[in-house]
Amino acid sequence: MDHDLAALTARLAAFADERDWGQFHTPKNLVMALAGEVGELTAEFQWLTADESAAVMADEGHANRVRAEIGDVMIYLTRLAAVLDIDLVDAANAKLDTAGRRYPVDRVRGSAEKATEGQPAES
Amino acid sequence: MDHDLAALTARLAAFADERDWGQFHTPKNLVMALAGEVGELTAEFQWLTADESAAVMADEGHANRVRAEIGDVMIYLTRLAAVLDIDLVDAANAKLDTAGRRYPVDRVRGSAEKATEGQPAES
Amino acid sequence: MDHDLAALTARLAAFADERDWGQFHTPKNLVMALAGEVGELTAEFQWLTADESAAVMADEGHANRVRAEIGDVMIYLTRLAAVLDIDLVDAANAKLDTAGRRYPVDRVRGSAEKATEGQPAES
Amino acid sequence: MDHDLAALTARLAAFADERDWGQFHTPKNLVMALAGEVGELTAEFQWLTADESAAVMADEGHANRVRAEIGDVMIYLTRLAAVLDIDLVDAANAKLDTAGRRYPVDRVRGSAEKATEGQPAES
Repeated sequence: MDHDLAALTARLAAFADERDWGQFHTPKNLVMALAGEVGELTAEFQWLTADESAAVMADEGHANRVRAEIGDVMIYLTRLAAVLDIDLVDAANAKLDTAGRRYPVDRVRGSAEKATEGQPAES
Repeated sequence: MDHDLAALTARLAAFADERDWGQFHTPKNLVMALAGEVGELTAEFQWLTADESAAVMADEGHANRVRAEIGDVMIYLTRLAAVLDIDLVDAANAKLDTAGRRYPVDRVRGSAEKATEGQPAES
Repeated sequence: MDHDLAALTARLAAFADERDWGQFHTPKNLVMALAGEVGELTAEFQWLTADESAAVMADEGHANRVRAEIGDVMIYLTRLAAVLDIDLVDAANAKLDTAGRRYPVDRVRGSAEKATEGQPAES
Repeated sequence: MDHDLAALTARLAAFADERDWGQFHTPKNLVMALAGEVGELTAEFQWLTADESAAVMADEGHANRVRAEIGDVMIYLTRLAAVLDIDLVDAANAKLDTAGRRYPVDRVRGSAEKATEGQPAES
């Protein structure tokens, strides 16, 4: 398993450059492409029960579609972050620092109500 | 710059475990959380022109909001991939292998029509 | 109950005109605004079980948020359709005509596999 | 032009009943289906400039795809609202009442900064 995010970022830049696609890769367009791919990923799960969704990788055809959609999402997220000069892992860790303060373990343990980031907890 | 995706994955698992949130982290729920965060990211760019979107990081307030939303998207994408046992970078590279064959450099150079993955080129 | 879609369309046009917002209401921008609002709606349901989602309107606070998000989605969908000169109800009915032929009652009855429009049925 | 939203709602209920698809039409699942369709609609606009997006209906092939995607979005939005017992037009009008107070004409005229509902205006 090789998590070479920097190499992926470089490969995506080369891929776009070779095809002269940089002109289309504005942040606005890339955000839309990301949203489109997340829509396709969502469609793979829309009719599944919670249990079926947990077992989705046991079906080879479905697993391949999910893996492909997640690959597409990762491609556009990585490309968007590169164009904006944002480090994906740093951005996630910074958000987790905030979330750790916002949802202290002893207050939210096992509570779905409080598990929603970005939405005020009710009461 | 440290792209430690494996450490982020482990931190997210610990974050959920400590709060007993694993019960909410079905693939179906995580896909929805990802879609919700991508919606918030999209909203940051909805009224911007292409040029304004390219300059979005020059405005400190807007830059902070974009960085925070991208952090949220990365959090849920990483967590989803972990729950499904999918390697994000491998999945992206596999999709790029396919895309490289599908969009050969000499055929699609500079063409927006062909720049849409996942949608048949209009002949 | 008054389903006056034409009056809503007119009200939205006046709302934008009075504020000189027509300049921002390109189809591209309105699609993004629609996607952003659908993201907020999705977030309202992300941690709910199927049963909890079916009972969501029984909680006054949650019901109000869902109603408000659906209102926002309807606003941008109606405005987008108006700008593109598409009749929403006609477009839905045309799609249903196709879906009726594609999913004949006797072949798909009770089957989740076949319930996914826009994705090839698996075998 | 016939805006018969009530008839569309009834047709969608019959369509689901005949196929015994009511079991899949939880609000949670329908929200995901809506998000998936909005993703496909977004993909139709992702590489277009603002001007190209304004002219999208002049290309017959693209116009047909946009009309079909908007039809799909309307189908799932209408079905979701029916399942939740929410009147789409009433919900939109209620949101517009609020928006009218929030964005008074003389304060926001021609300003993109203030055109973003659901996000605090930046002073």
